[in-house]
Amino acid sequence: MASTLRSDESNLHDLVEHFFRASFSTDNPIITEAVRRMLAAGGKRLRPRVTLLAASSCGDDPQRHLHLAAYMELIHVATLIHDDVVDNAMTRRGVNATAVDFGNRVSVLAGDYLFAWIFKNVTANYPHPVPNILSATLADICDGEVLQLQALGNLELTLDGYVEIARKKTASLFAASAACGAIMGGGSAEQIDAMRVYGDFYGIAFQMNDDLLDMTADERSLGKPVGNDLRERKVTVPLVLALGAGNREFYEAVDRFYGGSGDAGIPGVVAAIAREGGLDSTRAEIARYAERAKAALEPLPPSAAKEEMKRLADALAAE
Amino acid sequence: MASTLRSDESNLHDLVEHFFRASFSTDNPIITEAVRRMLAAGGKRLRPRVTLLAASSCGDDPQRHLHLAAYMELIHVATLIHDDVVDNAMTRRGVNATAVDFGNRVSVLAGDYLFAWIFKNVTANYPHPVPNILSATLADICDGEVLQLQALGNLELTLDGYVEIARKKTASLFAASAACGAIMGGGSAEQIDAMRVYGDFYGIAFQMNDDLLDMTADERSLGKPVGNDLRERKVTVPLVLALGAGNREFYEAVDRFYGGSGDAGIPGVVAAIAREGGLDSTRAEIARYAERAKAALEPLPPSAAKEEMKRLADALAAE
Repeated sequence: MASTLRSDESNLHDLVEHFFRASFSTDNPIITEAVRRMLAAGGKRLRPRVTLLAASSCGDDPQRHLHLAAYMELIHVATLIHDDVVDNAMTRRGVNATAVDFGNRVSVLAGDYLFAWIFKNVTANYPHPVPNILSATLADICDGEVLQLQALGNLELTLDGYVEIARKKTASLFAASAACGAIMGGGSAEQIDAMRVYGDFYGIAFQMNDDLLDMTADERSLGKPVGNDLRERKVTVPLVLALGAGNREFYEAVDRFYGGSGDAGIPGVVAAIAREGGLDSTRAEIARYAERAKAALEPLPPSAAKEEMKRLADALAAE
Repeated sequence: MASTLRSDESNLHDLVEHFFRASFSTDNPIITEAVRRMLAAGGKRLRPRVTLLAASSCGDDPQRHLHLAAYMELIHVATLIHDDVVDNAMTRRGVNATAVDFGNRVSVLAGDYLFAWIFKNVTANYPHPVPNILSATLADICDGEVLQLQALGNLELTLDGYVEIARKKTASLFAASAACGAIMGGGSAEQIDAMRVYGDFYGIAFQMNDDLLDMTADERSLGKPVGNDLRERKVTVPLVLALGAGNREFYEAVDRFYGGSGDAGIPGVVAAIAREGGLDSTRAEIARYAERAKAALEPLPPSAAKEEMKRLADALAAE
C-alpha cells in the first residue's frame, strides 16, 4: 500500500474526486460538459471506492487503479444519464437532469458515448477478462431494469423476484467493481471470487437500503422527492415484505393506490407499510445481506482495506 | 472460399438473413423480440455484407464470419433503436404521455442491452484489436450524431464539416465492418488498412446517397416521408453544395424556411436546391468517393469478392 494512502472513507473519496476534476475528459466537449455536471452534483463514489479497497486488500497500491475505479463510477453515471430519459425525471441528485438541460436526444447520445468511451479505454488498456466483465455487467444492469419495468405495479412480486432484479440492476456493478479491483490488484482466484461475492451481497443490501430511504429519509437529504418509488409504482422491498405479512385489507389498499383510485396518498401508504412491519423487516434483510457481504471477505488477509469494506457493509445496516 | 458461396449480393444477404432468423437470441426475451422486429422490418444488410466480402477478399471463407458480420448489423440496429427516442417537446402534444415514456424507456434499455450484449460476446470471442475497434466506432457514431445535432440549421456548414460528420456518424461503422472482416479473415496489415479506407470512403458516399434519396426518391421506395431531412433542419450535402454556389437569394429563402417563416414548402426547397446545382454536385461527389473506395482496394488480389465490393461502390454512384 502506498504510504500516502490511509484507506479511510474520506481519503478514498477525495482521491476519486481529485482524479475526476484533474483528469476526466472525453474527445467530445458537449459530452464532457454533461458528464462533469453529473459528477459535480456529488455522490458517494461507492463503486470506485470498492474497486480501490479490493485492490488494496489484495495487497496492491490503490492509487495505481484510479482509472479503473473511475470507469466504475462512469458506468454508473452513464446509466443515470439514461435513467433520466427512461424515468423522465426532473431532477437527479438535486441538479437539473441531463435530459432536462439538453433534451432526450442528447441524453441518449451522451450515455451511449460514455459507455463507448469507457469500453474503448478498457479494451485498449485492460487484459481479459476485465472488458468482458464490464460489458456483461452492463447487460445485467439493462436486463435488471427491464425486469423492473415488467414488475411495475406487480403486487405478487416475491422477495426472491425482488432480489433477482436488485442483483442485476444494482449489485452486478458492485460485484464487477470489487472483482476487477481484485483482478488488477493481483488477487488470487479465491480472493477475486470473494470480492465478487462481497460486491454482490453488498449491492443487494445497498439497493434495499435505497428502497428504505425512499420511504424514511427527508427530501433534503435524499435529493429527490420522498415516496418517489411508490409514485412510479415500483415494487420495492419494504412493500414486498409488508405484503408478505398477508393482510388482505392492506393488499387491497395498495392495489387501489397503484390503480390510481386509492385515497391513502403516499404518506398513508408508507404508514401502512410500517404498520405491516415492512420497514423493520427491510432493516433485518439489509443486516442479513451486510453480514453475508462481510463473511465473504474471509479469504482476505487482515488489512485496513478489509476493515473498511466491513465498515461499508455495517453502515448500510445502521441506517 | 466455401464452394457453396457465390459472393453475389443476394446470396450474402440471404446468408445474413438466415443467420439472424436461425441464430439471433439474447438472454432477455423482451429485447430479443424488439430486435427481431427491427430485423424483420428489412434492410440491405450492407454492413455485414462488407464484413463477409472483406474476409472473403482476404482469402478466407466468409461463412466462418457470420457472427462477426451479424454484430456489425446489430450495432447499426441498436443505434436505430436509440434514434427512436424522441424529445418530450416534440411528442407531448396530443399523445398519451405514459405511452411515450414507456416507448422511450424500452428504446433506451433495448439499445443499451444490445450494445452490452454485443460487447460481451465480442470481448469473449474476438482478439485485440476487434473489441477496441468496435467500441471506438460506437464512440465515433455518437460523436458524429452530437456534431450533427449541433449543426442543425447551420447554413454555414462547409463540405469539409459535412464530411467530418458523415465520416463519424456513418462511415466509421462501414470502416470497422471492412477492417474487422479483414482482420479475422487473416488479411495482412496493408490489406486491413485498405479495407478500412474502402469502408471509410464507401460510407461517406453511402451517406451522401442517403441524403440525395431523401430529396429525389418517392416516398414508397424510401419507406419514410420525402424531405424528412429538411423537415428536421438537417444540413445535408445537396443543401451544402447548393449553398456553396453562392446565390444570396437562395440562402435567404432557405434561412426563412429553416426559421419557420418561409413560404416555399419542402417541394419548393428541393426544387431550389436542384436549380442551384445541389443534386448534380451531390451525384458528382458520390461518384468521387465511390472511385476513391474502389481505388483503395488495389492491394487486394483479384477475387469475386473484390469485384463485388467495386460493384457496391458503383451502385451508389449509379442512383
